[in-house]
Amino acid sequence: NIIPKDDVQAIDHSNLNIRLSKSYAKLHTLHPSDLADILEDMGKKSSMTVFSALDEEKAADVLEELETNAQIHILENLPVNKAADVLEKMPADEVADILDELEDEKVEILLKEMEAESSKEVRELLEYSDNSVGSLMTTDILSFKPGVTVEEVIDELRVKKPESVELYNLFVTETNDELIGTFNLRDLVVAQPNTMVSQIMKSEPVFLYDSQKVEDIAELISKYNLLAVPVVDTNNQLQGMVVVDDVVEDLINKRRTKKR
Amino acid sequence: NIIPKDDVQAIDHSNLNIRLSKSYAKLHTLHPSDLADILEDMGKKSSMTVFSALDEEKAADVLEELETNAQIHILENLPVNKAADVLEKMPADEVADILDELEDEKVEILLKEMEAESSKEVRELLEYSDNSVGSLMTTDILSFKPGVTVEEVIDELRVKKPESVELYNLFVTETNDELIGTFNLRDLVVAQPNTMVSQIMKSEPVFLYDSQKVEDIAELISKYNLLAVPVVDTNNQLQGMVVVDDVVEDLINKRRTKKR
Repeated sequence: NIIPKDDVQAIDHSNLNIRLSKSYAKLHTLHPSDLADILEDMGKKSSMTVFSALDEEKAADVLEELETNAQIHILENLPVNKAADVLEKMPADEVADILDELEDEKVEILLKEMEAESSKEVRELLEYSDNSVGSLMTTDILSFKPGVTVEEVIDELRVKKPESVELYNLFVTETNDELIGTFNLRDLVVAQPNTMVSQIMKSEPVFLYDSQKVEDIAELISKYNLLAVPVVDTNNQLQGMVVVDDVVEDLINKRRTKKR
Repeated sequence: NIIPKDDVQAIDHSNLNIRLSKSYAKLHTLHPSDLADILEDMGKKSSMTVFSALDEEKAADVLEELETNAQIHILENLPVNKAADVLEKMPADEVADILDELEDEKVEILLKEMEAESSKEVRELLEYSDNSVGSLMTTDILSFKPGVTVEEVIDELRVKKPESVELYNLFVTETNDELIGTFNLRDLVVAQPNTMVSQIMKSEPVFLYDSQKVEDIAELISKYNLLAVPVVDTNNQLQGMVVVDDVVEDLINKRRTKKR
Protein backbone atom coordinates (compact mmCIF):
# COMPACT_ATOMS: atom_id res chain seq x y z
CA ASN A 1 0.00 0.00 0.00
CA ILE A 2 2.97 2.24 -0.23
CA ILE A 3 2.79 4.51 -3.22
CA PRO A 4 6.25 5.03 -4.66
CA LYS A 5 7.31 8.68 -4.57
CA ASP A 6 7.79 8.76 -8.33
CA ASP A 7 4.17 7.79 -8.91
CA VAL A 8 2.86 10.55 -6.69
CA GLN A 9 4.85 13.04 -8.63
CA ALA A 10 3.53 11.60 -11.87
CA ILE A 11 -0.09 11.97 -10.72
CA ASP A 12 0.51 15.48 -9.51
CA HIS A 13 2.13 16.16 -12.81
CA SER A 14 -0.75 14.98 -15.01
CA ASN A 15 -3.27 16.86 -12.88
CA LEU A 16 -1.26 19.95 -13.44
CA ASN A 17 -1.32 19.37 -17.18
CA ILE A 18 -5.12 19.38 -17.12
CA ARG A 19 -5.23 22.53 -15.05
CA LEU A 20 -2.60 24.04 -17.28
CA SER A 21 -4.44 23.45 -20.53
CA LYS A 22 -7.42 25.25 -18.99
CA SER A 23 -5.53 28.17 -17.56
CA TYR A 24 -2.85 28.41 -20.21
CA ALA A 25 -4.22 31.70 -21.53
CA LYS A 26 -4.26 33.11 -18.01
CA LEU A 27 -0.61 32.29 -17.42
CA HIS A 28 0.36 34.54 -20.27
CA THR A 29 -1.43 37.51 -18.73
CA LEU A 30 0.64 37.28 -15.54
CA HIS A 31 3.60 39.60 -15.04
CA PRO A 32 6.87 37.64 -15.63
CA SER A 33 7.95 38.45 -12.05
CA ASP A 34 4.74 36.96 -10.62
CA LEU A 35 5.06 33.90 -12.85
CA ALA A 36 8.65 33.52 -11.64
CA ASP A 37 7.43 33.61 -8.02
CA ILE A 38 4.88 30.91 -8.77
CA LEU A 39 7.47 28.68 -10.47
CA GLU A 40 9.79 29.06 -7.49
CA ASP A 41 7.02 27.89 -5.14
CA MET A 42 6.22 24.84 -7.29
CA GLY A 43 8.02 21.50 -7.26
CA LYS A 44 10.90 21.12 -9.70
CA LYS A 45 9.04 18.84 -12.10
CA SER A 46 5.90 20.97 -12.18
CA SER A 47 7.86 24.13 -12.69
CA MET A 48 9.60 22.52 -15.69
CA THR A 49 6.19 21.60 -17.15
CA VAL A 50 4.87 25.12 -16.78
CA PHE A 51 8.06 26.68 -18.06
CA SER A 52 8.09 24.43 -21.13
CA ALA A 53 4.53 25.51 -21.94
CA LEU A 54 5.53 29.16 -22.27
CA ASP A 55 6.40 30.66 -25.63
CA GLU A 56 10.04 31.72 -26.05
CA GLU A 57 9.47 35.44 -25.40
CA LYS A 58 7.58 34.83 -22.17
CA ALA A 59 9.99 32.07 -21.15
CA ALA A 60 12.90 34.50 -21.58
CA ASP A 61 11.17 37.18 -19.48
CA VAL A 62 10.40 34.65 -16.73
CA LEU A 63 13.88 33.09 -16.74
CA GLU A 64 15.31 36.57 -16.28
CA GLU A 65 13.25 37.11 -13.12
CA LEU A 66 13.91 33.71 -11.49
CA GLU A 67 16.36 33.26 -8.63
CA THR A 68 19.74 31.83 -9.53
CA ASN A 69 19.04 28.28 -8.30
CA ALA A 70 15.83 28.05 -10.29
CA GLN A 71 17.56 29.41 -13.37
CA ILE A 72 20.26 26.74 -13.11
CA HIS A 73 17.68 23.99 -12.61
CA ILE A 74 15.77 25.00 -15.73
CA LEU A 75 18.81 25.36 -17.98
CA GLU A 76 20.17 21.99 -16.86
CA ASN A 77 16.87 20.22 -17.59
CA LEU A 78 15.59 21.95 -20.71
CA PRO A 79 16.57 20.41 -24.08
CA VAL A 80 19.66 22.25 -25.33
CA ASN A 81 18.02 23.61 -28.50
CA LYS A 82 15.04 24.97 -26.55
CA ALA A 83 17.32 26.48 -23.88
CA ALA A 84 19.41 28.18 -26.57
CA ASP A 85 16.26 29.60 -28.21
CA VAL A 86 15.13 31.09 -24.91
CA LEU A 87 18.57 32.53 -24.11
CA GLU A 88 18.66 34.23 -27.50
CA LYS A 89 15.55 36.23 -26.53
CA MET A 90 17.23 37.54 -23.37
CA PRO A 91 19.50 40.58 -23.00
CA ALA A 92 23.12 39.42 -23.39
CA ASP A 93 24.12 40.71 -19.94
CA GLU A 94 21.42 38.61 -18.26
CA VAL A 95 22.54 35.53 -20.21
CA ALA A 96 26.14 36.15 -19.15
CA ASP A 97 25.03 36.43 -15.50
CA ILE A 98 23.23 33.07 -15.66
CA LEU A 99 25.95 31.23 -17.60
CA ASP A 100 28.47 32.44 -15.02
CA GLU A 101 26.71 30.07 -12.57
CA LEU A 102 26.78 26.96 -14.81
CA GLU A 103 29.59 24.48 -15.39
CA ASP A 104 32.02 25.45 -18.16
CA GLU A 105 31.14 22.40 -20.25
CA LYS A 106 27.40 23.23 -20.20
CA VAL A 107 28.14 26.88 -20.98
CA GLU A 108 30.13 25.85 -24.07
CA ILE A 109 27.30 23.56 -25.29
CA LEU A 110 24.71 26.31 -24.92
CA LEU A 111 26.83 29.00 -26.54
CA LYS A 112 27.55 26.72 -29.52
CA GLU A 113 23.81 26.05 -29.95
CA MET A 114 22.95 29.78 -29.87
CA GLU A 115 23.09 31.95 -32.98
CA ALA A 116 26.61 33.23 -33.66
CA GLU A 117 25.74 36.90 -33.16
CA SER A 118 24.06 36.37 -29.77
CA SER A 119 26.73 34.05 -28.43
CA LYS A 120 29.53 36.40 -29.52
CA GLU A 121 28.02 39.23 -27.42
CA VAL A 122 27.63 36.92 -24.43
CA ARG A 123 31.22 35.64 -24.76
CA GLU A 124 32.51 39.24 -24.74
CA LEU A 125 30.58 39.97 -21.55
CA LEU A 126 31.84 36.77 -19.89
CA GLU A 127 35.38 38.08 -20.40
CA TYR A 128 34.81 40.96 -17.97
CA SER A 129 35.95 40.33 -14.42
CA ASP A 130 33.13 39.96 -11.88
CA ASN A 131 33.58 43.31 -10.21
CA SER A 132 34.00 45.45 -13.34
CA VAL A 133 31.48 47.89 -14.82
CA GLY A 134 31.48 45.75 -17.99
CA SER A 135 30.06 42.80 -16.10
CA LEU A 136 27.13 44.93 -14.85
CA MET A 137 26.28 46.79 -18.08
CA THR A 138 23.60 45.96 -20.62
CA THR A 139 24.58 45.96 -24.28
CA ASP A 140 21.03 46.52 -25.58
CA ILE A 141 21.36 50.21 -26.31
CA LEU A 142 20.27 52.59 -29.03
CA SER A 143 22.59 55.15 -30.58
CA PHE A 144 22.04 57.75 -33.28
CA LYS A 145 24.16 60.03 -35.43
CA PRO A 146 24.14 63.75 -34.47
CA GLY A 147 22.48 64.87 -37.72
CA VAL A 148 19.36 62.70 -37.36
CA THR A 149 16.11 64.57 -36.58
CA VAL A 150 13.78 64.00 -33.64
CA GLU A 151 11.07 62.85 -36.06
CA GLU A 152 13.40 60.24 -37.61
CA VAL A 153 14.31 58.90 -34.18
CA ILE A 154 10.63 58.61 -33.17
CA ASP A 155 9.81 56.86 -36.47
CA GLU A 156 12.61 54.37 -35.84
CA LEU A 157 11.39 53.70 -32.29
CA ARG A 158 7.82 53.13 -33.58
CA VAL A 159 9.14 50.40 -35.85
CA LYS A 160 11.63 48.80 -33.44
CA LYS A 161 9.41 49.05 -30.32
CA PRO A 162 12.34 48.61 -27.91
CA GLU A 163 11.80 47.56 -24.28
CA SER A 164 11.39 50.40 -21.74
CA VAL A 165 14.79 49.80 -20.21
CA GLU A 166 16.57 50.29 -23.55
CA LEU A 167 15.10 53.80 -23.62
CA TYR A 168 16.35 54.92 -20.19
CA ASN A 169 19.14 56.75 -22.01
CA LEU A 170 19.73 57.26 -25.75
CA PHE A 171 23.17 57.89 -27.17
CA VAL A 172 24.75 60.01 -29.88
CA THR A 173 27.91 58.65 -31.52
CA GLU A 174 30.29 59.60 -34.29
CA THR A 175 30.85 57.16 -37.16
CA ASN A 176 33.63 55.43 -35.18
CA ASP A 177 31.15 54.73 -32.29
CA GLU A 178 32.76 57.43 -30.17
CA LEU A 179 30.27 58.70 -27.59
CA ILE A 180 29.62 62.43 -28.03
CA GLY A 181 26.33 62.93 -26.17
CA THR A 182 23.20 61.53 -24.55
CA PHE A 183 19.50 62.40 -24.58
CA ASN A 184 16.40 60.86 -23.10
CA LEU A 185 12.81 60.18 -24.13
CA ARG A 186 11.70 63.37 -22.39
CA ASP A 187 14.07 65.47 -24.52
CA LEU A 188 12.75 63.68 -27.60
CA VAL A 189 9.06 64.11 -26.80
CA VAL A 190 9.19 67.79 -25.84
CA ALA A 191 11.33 68.80 -28.86
CA GLN A 192 9.97 70.00 -32.20
CA PRO A 193 9.99 67.13 -34.76
CA ASN A 194 12.52 68.79 -37.12
CA THR A 195 15.10 69.43 -34.36
CA MET A 196 18.42 67.61 -34.80
CA VAL A 197 19.61 65.17 -32.16
CA SER A 198 22.81 67.23 -31.77
CA GLN A 199 20.64 70.15 -30.60
CA ILE A 200 18.85 68.26 -27.84
CA MET A 201 21.74 66.07 -26.64
CA LYS A 202 23.70 66.70 -23.48
CA SER A 203 27.35 66.85 -24.52
CA GLU A 204 30.12 65.81 -22.13
CA PRO A 205 27.83 63.32 -20.38
CA VAL A 206 28.73 61.44 -17.21
CA PHE A 207 30.19 58.04 -18.24
CA LEU A 208 32.02 54.97 -16.92
CA TYR A 209 34.85 52.85 -18.34
CA ASP A 210 34.03 49.17 -18.93
CA SER A 211 37.18 48.02 -17.15
CA GLN A 212 36.80 50.17 -14.02
CA LYS A 213 35.60 48.63 -10.78
CA VAL A 214 31.93 48.77 -9.81
CA GLU A 215 32.09 51.37 -7.06
CA ASP A 216 29.79 54.19 -6.10
CA ILE A 217 27.61 53.81 -9.20
CA ALA A 218 24.60 54.15 -6.91
CA GLU A 219 25.98 57.44 -5.60
CA LEU A 220 26.68 58.66 -9.14
CA ILE A 221 23.19 57.73 -10.37
CA SER A 222 21.61 59.31 -7.30
CA LYS A 223 23.67 62.49 -7.46
CA TYR A 224 22.72 63.25 -11.05
CA ASN A 225 19.28 61.61 -10.95
CA LEU A 226 20.14 59.33 -13.87
CA LEU A 227 18.34 56.22 -15.11
CA ALA A 228 21.36 54.87 -16.99
CA VAL A 229 25.05 55.71 -17.35
CA PRO A 230 26.91 55.11 -20.65
CA VAL A 231 29.91 52.76 -20.59
CA VAL A 232 32.87 53.30 -22.95
CA ASP A 233 36.15 51.52 -23.57
CA THR A 234 39.56 53.20 -23.47
CA ASN A 235 39.00 54.53 -27.01
CA ASN A 236 35.84 56.29 -25.81
CA GLN A 237 33.79 53.92 -27.97
CA LEU A 238 30.32 53.19 -26.62
CA GLN A 239 30.00 49.62 -25.23
CA GLY A 240 26.77 49.65 -23.22
CA MET A 241 25.07 51.25 -20.23
CA VAL A 242 24.50 50.53 -16.55
CA VAL A 243 20.80 50.95 -15.68
CA VAL A 244 19.22 51.99 -12.39
CA ASP A 245 17.29 48.68 -12.12
CA ASP A 246 20.55 46.75 -11.77
CA VAL A 247 21.88 49.26 -9.27
CA VAL A 248 18.73 48.95 -7.12
CA GLU A 249 18.96 45.15 -7.29
CA ASP A 250 22.62 45.35 -6.27
CA LEU A 251 21.77 47.59 -3.29
CA ILE A 252 18.94 45.28 -2.18
CA ASN A 253 21.16 42.19 -2.44
CA LYS A 254 23.90 43.86 -0.40
CA ARG A 255 21.36 44.87 2.25
CA ARG A 256 19.98 41.32 2.36
CA THR A 257 23.44 39.80 2.72
CA LYS A 258 24.15 42.08 5.67
CA LYS A 259 20.89 41.22 7.39
CA ARG A 260 21.67 37.50 7.34
CA ASN B 1 49.18 93.34 13.43
CA ILE B 2 46.45 90.92 14.14
CA ILE B 3 43.82 90.97 11.42
CA PRO B 4 40.37 90.45 12.92
CA LYS B 5 38.67 87.33 11.62
CA ASP B 6 35.74 89.35 10.28
CA ASP B 7 38.03 91.42 8.08
CA VAL B 8 39.62 88.36 6.54
CA GLN B 9 36.26 87.06 5.64
CA ALA B 10 35.31 90.43 4.19
CA ILE B 11 38.37 90.44 1.93
CA ASP B 12 37.81 86.88 0.85
CA HIS B 13 34.23 87.85 0.18
CA SER B 14 35.00 90.81 -2.09
CA ASN B 15 37.58 88.78 -4.01
CA LEU B 16 34.95 86.20 -4.58
CA ASN B 17 32.60 88.86 -5.93
CA ILE B 18 35.15 89.82 -8.55
CA ARG B 19 35.74 86.21 -9.52
CA LEU B 20 32.01 85.66 -9.52
CA SER B 21 31.17 88.50 -11.88
CA LYS B 22 33.74 87.05 -14.31
CA SER B 23 32.61 83.46 -14.06
CA TYR B 24 28.92 84.08 -13.48
CA ALA B 25 28.01 82.64 -16.87
CA LYS B 26 30.06 79.53 -16.14
CA LEU B 27 28.26 78.87 -12.86
CA HIS B 28 25.01 78.49 -14.72
CA THR B 29 26.45 75.79 -16.96
CA LEU B 30 27.33 73.57 -13.99
CA HIS B 31 25.05 70.72 -13.03
CA PRO B 32 23.00 71.66 -9.92
CA SER B 33 24.54 68.70 -8.05
CA ASP B 34 28.08 69.92 -8.79
CA LEU B 35 27.17 73.47 -7.81
CA ALA B 36 25.72 72.08 -4.57
CA ASP B 37 29.02 70.27 -3.87
CA ILE B 38 30.95 73.50 -4.43
CA LEU B 39 28.66 75.48 -2.13
CA GLU B 40 29.07 72.86 0.59
CA ASP B 41 32.86 73.16 0.37
CA MET B 42 32.77 76.99 0.61
CA GLY B 43 32.52 79.07 3.76
CA LYS B 44 29.01 79.96 4.88
CA LYS B 45 29.24 83.64 3.83
CA SER B 46 30.69 82.85 0.41
CA SER B 47 28.13 80.18 -0.25
CA MET B 48 25.35 82.66 0.54
CA THR B 49 26.88 85.13 -1.94
CA VAL B 50 27.05 82.55 -4.69
CA PHE B 51 23.57 81.21 -3.94
CA SER B 52 22.06 84.71 -3.98
CA ALA B 53 23.59 85.30 -7.42
CA LEU B 54 21.66 82.39 -8.95
CA ASP B 55 18.35 82.91 -10.68
CA GLU B 56 15.33 81.35 -8.95
CA GLU B 57 15.12 78.25 -11.18
CA LYS B 58 18.80 77.38 -10.71
CA ALA B 59 18.67 78.27 -7.02
CA ALA B 60 15.75 75.87 -6.57
CA ASP B 61 17.62 73.06 -8.37
CA VAL B 62 20.73 73.64 -6.25
CA LEU B 63 18.84 73.93 -2.95
CA GLU B 64 17.22 70.57 -3.73
CA GLU B 65 20.65 68.92 -4.07
CA LEU B 66 22.28 70.44 -0.95
CA GLU B 67 22.75 68.49 2.26
CA THR B 68 20.26 69.21 5.03
CA ASN B 69 22.56 71.43 7.10
CA ALA B 70 23.41 73.61 4.11
CA GLN B 71 19.71 73.85 3.18
CA ILE B 72 18.84 75.04 6.68
CA HIS B 73 21.66 77.59 6.68
CA ILE B 74 20.52 79.10 3.40
CA LEU B 75 16.82 79.28 4.30
CA GLU B 76 17.64 80.89 7.64
CA ASN B 77 19.83 83.56 6.06
CA LEU B 78 18.04 84.35 2.81
CA PRO B 79 15.48 87.21 2.89
CA VAL B 80 12.04 85.64 3.42
CA ASN B 81 10.58 86.85 0.10
CA LYS B 82 13.55 85.48 -1.87
CA ALA B 83 13.43 82.18 0.04
CA ALA B 84 9.72 81.83 -0.68
CA ASP B 85 10.28 82.52 -4.40
CA VAL B 86 12.92 79.78 -4.57
CA LEU B 87 10.76 77.28 -2.65
CA GLU B 88 7.89 77.88 -5.06
CA LYS B 89 10.08 76.61 -7.90
CA MET B 90 10.78 73.35 -6.09
CA PRO B 91 8.67 70.15 -6.07
CA ALA B 92 6.29 70.29 -3.08
CA ASP B 93 7.67 67.07 -1.58
CA GLU B 94 11.23 68.45 -1.53
CA VAL B 95 9.96 71.65 0.13
CA ALA B 96 8.13 69.60 2.75
CA ASP B 97 11.32 67.59 3.44
CA ILE B 98 13.34 70.77 4.03
CA LEU B 99 10.69 72.57 6.10
CA ASP B 100 10.48 69.49 8.30
CA GLU B 101 13.99 70.39 9.51
CA LEU B 102 13.25 74.06 10.33
CA GLU B 103 11.67 75.56 13.45
CA ASP B 104 7.86 75.74 13.35
CA GLU B 105 7.85 79.53 13.55
CA LYS B 106 10.15 79.87 10.51
CA VAL B 107 8.10 77.28 8.59
CA GLU B 108 4.94 79.32 9.19
CA ILE B 109 6.60 82.56 8.01
CA LEU B 110 7.84 80.90 4.80
CA LEU B 111 4.54 79.17 4.03
CA LYS B 112 2.65 82.46 4.49
CA GLU B 113 5.02 84.22 2.09
CA MET B 114 4.63 81.52 -0.59
CA GLU B 115 1.77 81.57 -3.09
CA ALA B 116 -1.38 80.02 -1.66
CA GLU B 117 -1.48 77.13 -4.14
CA SER B 118 2.11 76.06 -3.51
CA SER B 119 1.90 76.35 0.26
CA LYS B 120 -1.38 74.40 0.38
CA GLU B 121 0.31 71.43 -1.36
CA VAL B 122 3.27 71.60 1.02
CA ARG B 123 1.00 71.81 4.08
CA GLU B 124 -0.84 68.67 2.95
CA LEU B 125 2.44 66.77 2.60
CA LEU B 126 3.64 67.97 6.02
CA GLU B 127 0.56 66.29 7.53
CA TYR B 128 1.82 62.82 6.56
CA SER B 129 3.69 60.97 9.26
CA ASP B 130 7.42 60.55 8.64
CA ASN B 131 7.33 56.88 7.78
CA SER B 132 4.29 56.90 5.47
CA VAL B 133 4.28 56.54 1.69
CA GLY B 134 2.66 60.00 1.51
CA SER B 135 5.76 61.59 3.02
CA LEU B 136 7.98 60.03 0.33
CA MET B 137 5.80 60.66 -2.72
CA THR B 138 6.07 63.51 -5.22
CA THR B 139 2.87 65.33 -6.16
CA ASP B 140 4.19 66.61 -9.51
CA ILE B 141 2.44 64.07 -11.71
CA LEU B 142 0.61 64.08 -15.02
CA SER B 143 -2.72 62.35 -15.54
CA PHE B 144 -4.93 62.02 -18.60
CA LYS B 145 -8.47 60.91 -19.38
CA PRO B 146 -8.81 57.49 -21.10
CA GLY B 147 -10.26 58.95 -24.33
CA VAL B 148 -7.34 61.27 -25.07
CA THR B 149 -5.14 60.27 -28.05
CA VAL B 150 -1.39 59.67 -28.06
CA GLU B 151 -0.95 62.69 -30.33
CA GLU B 152 -2.87 64.95 -27.92
CA VAL B 153 -0.72 63.78 -25.01
CA ILE B 154 2.51 64.45 -26.94
CA ASP B 155 1.25 67.90 -27.97
CA GLU B 156 0.51 68.71 -24.34
CA LEU B 157 3.96 67.52 -23.24
CA ARG B 158 5.61 69.68 -25.94
CA VAL B 159 3.90 72.74 -24.46
CA LYS B 160 4.36 71.91 -20.76
CA LYS B 161 7.93 70.55 -21.07
CA PRO B 162 7.76 68.70 -17.73
CA GLU B 163 10.93 67.58 -15.92
CA SER B 164 12.18 64.04 -16.73
CA VAL B 165 11.14 62.70 -13.34
CA GLU B 166 7.51 63.74 -13.86
CA LEU B 167 7.47 61.47 -16.91
CA TYR B 168 8.70 58.28 -15.16
CA ASN B 169 5.08 57.17 -15.09
CA LEU B 170 1.95 58.73 -16.62
CA PHE B 171 -1.51 58.13 -15.21
CA VAL B 172 -5.01 57.59 -16.52
CA THR B 173 -7.87 58.72 -14.28
CA GLU B 174 -11.66 58.91 -14.39
CA THR B 175 -13.35 62.28 -13.86
CA ASN B 176 -13.32 61.74 -10.07
CA ASP B 177 -9.48 61.32 -10.13
CA GLU B 178 -9.83 57.58 -9.63
CA LEU B 179 -6.73 55.78 -10.94
CA ILE B 180 -7.64 53.32 -13.73
CA GLY B 181 -4.29 52.77 -15.46
CA THR B 182 -0.69 53.80 -16.11
CA PHE B 183 1.51 54.16 -19.19
CA ASN B 184 5.03 55.37 -19.80
CA LEU B 185 6.89 57.46 -22.37
CA ARG B 186 7.96 54.31 -24.19
CA ASP B 187 4.32 53.24 -24.68
CA LEU B 188 3.56 56.75 -25.93
CA VAL B 189 6.45 56.97 -28.38
CA VAL B 190 6.02 53.55 -29.98
CA ALA B 191 2.21 53.90 -30.40
CA GLN B 192 0.49 55.25 -33.49
CA PRO B 193 -0.52 58.93 -32.97
CA ASN B 194 -4.29 58.29 -33.20
CA THR B 195 -4.29 55.51 -30.57
CA MET B 196 -6.30 56.27 -27.43
CA VAL B 197 -4.58 56.32 -24.04
CA SER B 198 -7.02 53.63 -22.82
CA GLN B 199 -5.57 51.29 -25.48
CA ILE B 200 -1.93 51.68 -24.43
CA MET B 201 -2.43 51.90 -20.65
CA LYS B 202 -1.71 49.05 -18.25
CA SER B 203 -4.91 48.53 -16.26
CA GLU B 204 -4.82 47.21 -12.69
CA PRO B 205 -1.39 48.76 -12.10
CA VAL B 206 0.73 48.15 -9.00
CA PHE B 207 -0.01 50.98 -6.49
CA LEU B 208 0.53 52.10 -2.90
CA TYR B 209 -1.76 53.78 -0.36
CA ASP B 210 -0.62 57.20 0.90
CA SER B 211 -1.16 56.21 4.54
CA GLN B 212 0.67 52.87 4.43
CA LYS B 213 4.14 52.53 5.91
CA VAL B 214 7.22 52.86 3.70
CA GLU B 215 8.31 49.24 3.54
CA ASP B 216 9.73 47.12 0.77
CA ILE B 217 9.13 49.79 -1.88
CA ALA B 218 12.64 49.04 -3.17
CA GLU B 219 11.72 45.35 -3.52
CA LEU B 220 8.46 46.25 -5.30
CA ILE B 221 10.19 48.63 -7.71
CA SER B 222 12.94 46.10 -8.36
CA LYS B 223 10.58 43.15 -8.83
CA TYR B 224 8.51 44.87 -11.51
CA ASN B 225 11.33 47.06 -12.90
CA LEU B 226 9.34 50.23 -12.28
CA LEU B 227 10.55 53.82 -12.32
CA ALA B 228 7.61 55.12 -10.28
CA VAL B 229 4.66 53.67 -8.35
CA PRO B 230 1.31 55.53 -8.17
CA VAL B 231 -0.01 56.49 -4.72
CA VAL B 232 -3.76 56.61 -4.03
CA ASP B 233 -5.89 57.44 -1.00
CA THR B 234 -8.55 55.14 0.47
CA ASN B 235 -11.01 56.29 -2.26
CA ASN B 236 -8.54 55.12 -4.92
CA GLN B 237 -8.03 58.74 -5.94
CA LEU B 238 -4.56 59.49 -7.33
CA GLN B 239 -2.41 61.53 -4.91
CA GLY B 240 1.12 61.27 -6.28
CA MET B 241 3.88 58.78 -7.04
CA VAL B 242 7.01 57.38 -5.42
CA VAL B 243 9.97 57.57 -7.83
CA VAL B 244 13.02 55.33 -8.09
CA ASP B 245 15.41 58.25 -7.41
CA ASP B 246 14.00 58.66 -3.90
CA VAL B 247 14.16 54.91 -3.32
CA VAL B 248 17.84 54.79 -4.36
CA GLU B 249 18.61 57.76 -2.11
CA ASP B 250 16.82 56.03 0.75
CA LEU B 251 18.84 52.81 0.20
CA ILE B 252 22.13 54.75 0.05
CA ASN B 253 21.32 56.68 3.24
CA LYS B 254 20.45 53.47 5.07
CA ARG B 255 23.71 51.88 3.91
CA ARG B 256 25.67 54.95 5.03
CA THR B 257 24.02 54.96 8.45
CA LYS B 258 24.99 51.31 8.92
CA LYS B 259 28.59 51.89 7.90
CA ARG B 260 29.07 54.59 10.56
